Amino acid sequence: MTATSQQNWTGDPADLLRVSEGFRLSAVDPDSTPGYAGGKKAGQSDLEAGAVQLDELQERLFAQSRLQDDAPAVLLVLQAMDSAGKGGIVRHVVGSVDPQGVSLVAFKKPTPEELAHDFLWRIEKHVPVAGFIGVFDRSHYEDVVIGKVRALADEAEIERRYGAIVDFEKRLTDAGVRVVKVMLHISPDEQKDRLMERLDRPDKHWKYNPGDVDERQLWPAYMDAYQAVFDRTSTPNALWHVIPANAKWYARLAVQALLLDALEGIDPQWPVADFDVEAEKVRLAAT
Amino acid sequence: MTATSQQNWTGDPADLLRVSEGFRLSAVDPDSTPGYAGGKKAGQSDLEAGAVQLDELQERLFAQSRLQDDAPAVLLVLQAMDSAGKGGIVRHVVGSVDPQGVSLVAFKKPTPEELAHDFLWRIEKHVPVAGFIGVFDRSHYEDVVIGKVRALADEAEIERRYGAIVDFEKRLTDAGVRVVKVMLHISPDEQKDRLMERLDRPDKHWKYNPGDVDERQLWPAYMDAYQAVFDRTSTPNALWHVIPANAKWYARLAVQALLLDALEGIDPQWPVADFDVEAEKVRLAAT
Repeated sequence: MTATSQQNWTGDPADLLRVSEGFRLSAVDPDSTPGYAGGKKAGQSDLEAGAVQLDELQERLFAQSRLQDDAPAVLLVLQAMDSAGKGGIVRHVVGSVDPQGVSLVAFKKPTPEELAHDFLWRIEKHVPVAGFIGVFDRSHYEDVVIGKVRALADEAEIERRYGAIVDFEKRLTDAGVRVVKVMLHISPDEQKDRLMERLDRPDKHWKYNPGDVDERQLWPAYMDAYQAVFDRTSTPNALWHVIPANAKWYARLAVQALLLDALEGIDPQWPVADFDVEAEKVRLAAT
Repeated sequence: MTATSQQNWTGDPADLLRVSEGFRLSAVDPDSTPGYAGGKKAGQSDLEAGAVQLDELQERLFAQSRLQDDAPAVLLVLQAMDSAGKGGIVRHVVGSVDPQGVSLVAFKKPTPEELAHDFLWRIEKHVPVAGFIGVFDRSHYEDVVIGKVRALADEAEIERRYGAIVDFEKRLTDAGVRVVKVMLHISPDEQKDRLMERLDRPDKHWKYNPGDVDERQLWPAYMDAYQAVFDRTSTPNALWHVIPANAKWYARLAVQALLLDALEGIDPQWPVADFDVEAEKVRLAAT
């Protein structure tokens, strides 16, 4: 279902960007803007309109959970190569809704305590509670992406993790969490330009890490690891979406569309009062 | 120091709203707009200008912490009677900065596990880390406000807590956390109107709790408890500010001004690269 407030889609981004049977990452053009008829300007205008809609849907989702313990939640999982724009998604898409209904976690290199547990231990702690939109900036997928590329775990362990992830996400969705998984896909040339900009601007130096260049040289291995992730973990209840992200405006619009789609699927309703409204008006008036 | 982007202040809100020696809560008019020469329209325009400034200062604060473990943080403590507008502050003031640099906690009724610990145990866990703006929507002050009004603890225990709070906040400020404490001050009539609106609108019913009317009838006791809080815990390093909040636009502008003041006091700087910028450009160009 296409989000009604975003006018310029010619197809449904949830369908167009979905990873399904036979998907090949190498066939996705990072410069493309699938299903969108407008350019950057139309995209920005649609993003603003979508923000208004997202804001209302999020408030309903939150409200519903106040009177219903098992109310649904949404979990947005963001994965990408460095500089692909995860931060911009958080700021410009997630940042448009009330922060009181968002739980955001940026997963870093695991601590010794985290490494002493199964890889899902630290993830489980941050699953969004009912009524919230949770956002994972990196996630358990690092454990099968960098884990594989850098051989931080052996092959049998990586295999085990794919299965564990599928089971984990099935449990989440069974418990009412809509899982929206997004990989932002940029080209190596685009990354080079973005990293060079960070080096050119003193106010961006803090975002640059010399290790980024080392990782960059493993690009093909990373793409293979992502392909394996898509092959193994894009399940009907927790589908992957690959979003061409050389055009930042398109990536933001597409992620917003996926969130709108998830929320429209939940269709949250204002909860009915569990008290006598007229009686309360009388009580309040008397004070 | 008055925030430069907010044009219409005739005095410094940090000074004008401060709780100092001899402060009387009963002397504050909730309808007033101390130190501000404009009305609602000018206030909204100043709020937008201030948001741009807050956004840049927050990014610098965050950036600085990436290369400096003991970098400063900010903690905004929000206390108020029901419906005074804490939620609006979070949404419209805090919500204007990048969510990646904000940690927000809404403290609810303590759980049995929390009650089995000292009252500061659950608070300590949510102190913002370096580089973050932490926001407490309610806080450890509930334990000396509702704690006192509802006699949830005896007098000696309440006395102990004032001292414990002063010591705790001194430790935070010594460790580099700027503590900004705000009480939003509305009148009982304004609260009545706001609660009645929640009863009148089905999409607001979820925000209404019959217990609010019970608490409302204890208004004078709550004001006394707040006065005691100001007398005992407005220390030089962790001052209280009481903000007249019948005019929502004024309260938002004033809280933003206090945050700007705190950040300008920190004066965060873009960190200097800890790598050889020119050498990295060469390395990157070669990939």
